[in-house]
Amino acid sequence: MAKGFLLVLSGPSGSGKGTVSQALMKKRNDIKFSISATTRKPRPTEIDGENYFFLSEEKFKQMEENGEFLESAYVHTNYYGTPKKFVMDEIEKGEIVLLEIDVQGALQIKKSYKEAVFIFLLPPTMDELRNRILKRGTETEEDIKTRFNNAFKELDFVGEYDFFVVNDEVENAVKDIEAIIHSEKLRVKRHNNIKLNITGQGGK
Amino acid sequence: MAKGFLLVLSGPSGSGKGTVSQALMKKRNDIKFSISATTRKPRPTEIDGENYFFLSEEKFKQMEENGEFLESAYVHTNYYGTPKKFVMDEIEKGEIVLLEIDVQGALQIKKSYKEAVFIFLLPPTMDELRNRILKRGTETEEDIKTRFNNAFKELDFVGEYDFFVVNDEVENAVKDIEAIIHSEKLRVKRHNNIKLNITGQGGK
Repeated sequence: MAKGFLLVLSGPSGSGKGTVSQALMKKRNDIKFSISATTRKPRPTEIDGENYFFLSEEKFKQMEENGEFLESAYVHTNYYGTPKKFVMDEIEKGEIVLLEIDVQGALQIKKSYKEAVFIFLLPPTMDELRNRILKRGTETEEDIKTRFNNAFKELDFVGEYDFFVVNDEVENAVKDIEAIIHSEKLRVKRHNNIKLNITGQGGK
Repeated sequence: MAKGFLLVLSGPSGSGKGTVSQALMKKRNDIKFSISATTRKPRPTEIDGENYFFLSEEKFKQMEENGEFLESAYVHTNYYGTPKKFVMDEIEKGEIVLLEIDVQGALQIKKSYKEAVFIFLLPPTMDELRNRILKRGTETEEDIKTRFNNAFKELDFVGEYDFFVVNDEVENAVKDIEAIIHSEKLRVKRHNNIKLNITGQGGK
């Protein structure tokens, strides 16, 4: 049986990783979405184990100490993390797991689980990135400036990734990611019985 | 500017690497076919620099000593080799170079140029492999047996390759290879100015 893999889709704010992830999940039914754990309270419509794993701060910190997260972060008074067990179990079963995450989180995963497939999503131009940040229309001028400057700095980390995808059109970005998935499924190292499948007999 | 890459398409006798290479070259006009050098005499229809680079034995051996081949072999009283310069020049220009070669040749290239992308082409079953070898209809029973046994042994080397493609139908095999090409074009390590392309400014 072939092992699956973790696909880390990451990029700066305004790269469109959320939109691209959703479009990819909508198009494919052979990809599992990695569910994050958080200590923040569930919103009325959110379901535990579906939108997030909702944990107490005590439980979260205990898991963190035990090395049970692929990455974790403290954002706005709450903890967030990617539980390792869910990802590893699915990979063992041969599944492709998609994790959409910011650049800092991806760099943490690069350290804890370098076997993942790392994709950096880029805006086509910085002007377009600025437009996308502006379009949200929910932030102060100061916030927009910070977000834009952070995005500019984070582009330096593209060198840490395996692949880059320019998100000019969501449809094109999805096609690029699908080619990466197709190709990674053909990777020899994730199959340990290729000869056996062909011949009915093992290798040397 | 992005660098290109060398795509090594290899596999045992009967895997169909010749047919798949031709189908791929026919479908795509963005791939250069690597031309081998040989000391054998040209056939009437063969053109130097197109079918082969036809060399004297003296010239061939001199090039071999100078390390000017990615791989070379002595077959049926003649030398054959893959000139390094043609491949490297095309890669520098950003081209994808396809090299169709037997397993022994591919393993040599793995040592001399591990940056290549190695694809192992497999028959769907050993029965089908036997059929393909039989269909040629030009060999003795002894030759067929040798060819079949060699193919069986060569399947052990699939572990040395990056990707495997099962050639059940030529069209499917070509699609798999095209996905690998698409994906490899998005590989970060072959691009040294991704940030510059987006921002107009270099990285750190």
